[in-house]
Amino acid sequence: MIRIIMDAFGGDNAPAAVVEGAALALNRFDDITITLCGKEDAIRSELQKHSFDAARMAVLNAEEVIDCHEAPTLAIKRKKDSSLVKALTAVANGEADCIVSAGSTGALLTGATLIVRRIKGVKRPALAPLLPTRTGGQMMLIDCGANADCKPAYLQQFAVMGSAYMKGVAGVENPRVGLLNNGAEAEKGNELTKATYPLLQAAPVNFVGNCEARDILSGDYDVLVCDGFSGNVVLKYTEGLSATILSMLKEELMADTRSKFGALLAKPAFRRMKKMMDSTEHGGAPLLGVNGGVIKAHGSSDAKAFCSAVMQARRFVAADINGAIGAAVAALPDEED
Amino acid sequence: MIRIIMDAFGGDNAPAAVVEGAALALNRFDDITITLCGKEDAIRSELQKHSFDAARMAVLNAEEVIDCHEAPTLAIKRKKDSSLVKALTAVANGEADCIVSAGSTGALLTGATLIVRRIKGVKRPALAPLLPTRTGGQMMLIDCGANADCKPAYLQQFAVMGSAYMKGVAGVENPRVGLLNNGAEAEKGNELTKATYPLLQAAPVNFVGNCEARDILSGDYDVLVCDGFSGNVVLKYTEGLSATILSMLKEELMADTRSKFGALLAKPAFRRMKKMMDSTEHGGAPLLGVNGGVIKAHGSSDAKAFCSAVMQARRFVAADINGAIGAAVAALPDEED
Repeated sequence: MIRIIMDAFGGDNAPAAVVEGAALALNRFDDITITLCGKEDAIRSELQKHSFDAARMAVLNAEEVIDCHEAPTLAIKRKKDSSLVKALTAVANGEADCIVSAGSTGALLTGATLIVRRIKGVKRPALAPLLPTRTGGQMMLIDCGANADCKPAYLQQFAVMGSAYMKGVAGVENPRVGLLNNGAEAEKGNELTKATYPLLQAAPVNFVGNCEARDILSGDYDVLVCDGFSGNVVLKYTEGLSATILSMLKEELMADTRSKFGALLAKPAFRRMKKMMDSTEHGGAPLLGVNGGVIKAHGSSDAKAFCSAVMQARRFVAADINGAIGAAVAALPDEED
Repeated sequence: MIRIIMDAFGGDNAPAAVVEGAALALNRFDDITITLCGKEDAIRSELQKHSFDAARMAVLNAEEVIDCHEAPTLAIKRKKDSSLVKALTAVANGEADCIVSAGSTGALLTGATLIVRRIKGVKRPALAPLLPTRTGGQMMLIDCGANADCKPAYLQQFAVMGSAYMKGVAGVENPRVGLLNNGAEAEKGNELTKATYPLLQAAPVNFVGNCEARDILSGDYDVLVCDGFSGNVVLKYTEGLSATILSMLKEELMADTRSKFGALLAKPAFRRMKKMMDSTEHGGAPLLGVNGGVIKAHGSSDAKAFCSAVMQARRFVAADINGAIGAAVAALPDEED
């Protein structure tokens, strides 16, 4: 059995969507157990709305909730009885294999590092969401915000960790690793990327070279390595620019009668498009490099998105991604920090 | 008279589009002269296709061309008889007020710094393109690639230079300056942005705080300050992601008959949309901080885009942006590099 613990009080639609997502997942997979962590009464009352195999469902009571506006480190240290801290502690103690949380990203990253701790040899855990590519696949962007300032050796490890994930979870045979850079040529870059390039060439990954930002979604890369600041910019801009383009297009389509009629007919296509761009369809973002599974679900996740995140957690554990990461990192020459 | 010099052999459509754009601009504005720099025979043969006020048009012969694949510094040093080097030299010598070039960005940046040189007090010139915002306006992104590694004092100057441009050329009364960052809160950031924040607070600009990448096109910022690496990522990703979304949407619209018919009706709206996102509609990117006007036109510029870039050059000179930059930079306390 794969033991998943869910932070039932994280995300915009908690706890209802978390509980419903858990029920969906239990009905879909018979090799998992789920523990819902949070205020027991509220969880139990939501649970009554769904049918599932009760033998594989448990509740872990936690009276406090960490919200998105709290300073992460302070919140983790003070709110010992929060759903997030208790769920992370269960992972740290080996009582659960993987946590799924849609709560504060900062608190989850800080908590995972402080409580679950790093895999031996890992310099920095990294948050690694998946973006849809132009060719219909998906691409991992690592790091996306756990480390605003990075050193070349961190990026080398990100490449190794991202490759292990894409191979084990996404089933990509020989993941193509790109380095996000300001030019395609090998000699381009800032100090960080210039120093990282030879480390990626030396690493046991399929490094295919620099990736200019215009090619991020080209489908030519399975893992795109970058510092957490740049990754954060790319991730958030994907959201902002997509929304801007769709809203501009909508306005244009409403500008005259002919277009308006056309837009009406094309509505299903727009809906499919929006769904395709919607990050919740692509599951959560794994935090790679800590001693247990950590999946960050999108804050706006609905029940279906939580079910996807559980599916992702299940694959993460089944494929023993952390075993692969530990072995791969140990085999790297120890680059100076 | 405002004296503009154009690199007639820069860009994908040179020299035909450059020459046609020059003729368009001369017919539109009677307070400018244009010198076309490049192979004289080819230019003269293109000129015969258009009618314009010949008294305000000159040709400066240059036999060599710098192409996009050449190493910038080497090309600038060796190709003394190239259209780019001769045009930049004319600006440096005070024979022209502003250059417009759609050639190699790297060669233009290097050449402008080496030949036209920095304004006294300016630490680093910066390339500053304009992006269309959600609210129908435009926003300056500075720096976008001239400086892959930046220091806080550079970013402070970028804010000052960008504000001078947006006030003088775009007519924005009190330009709102944002700092591209990985969080909206004041304490967020990497080492660079954390150190830059107080410098922007102290600078004589209308600093409105951190801007997360999802809000870049919100219309809440007139000048967005960032290091050249991040700016390059944002600029190129704007292009790549827009193209991806439009192509995904096109595919979706072709997926069934109803959508296909709708798409046909909505075609004019799509065309308007594409035009709106097309960077050539927004003129060129000024290089701010050098002793003369430098406008980088998009490589794929057509005649209309070259005409827009000349219009931008004209405003740049007329508003004495460099005078404003020189005065503003001199008034800044001298931050350590």
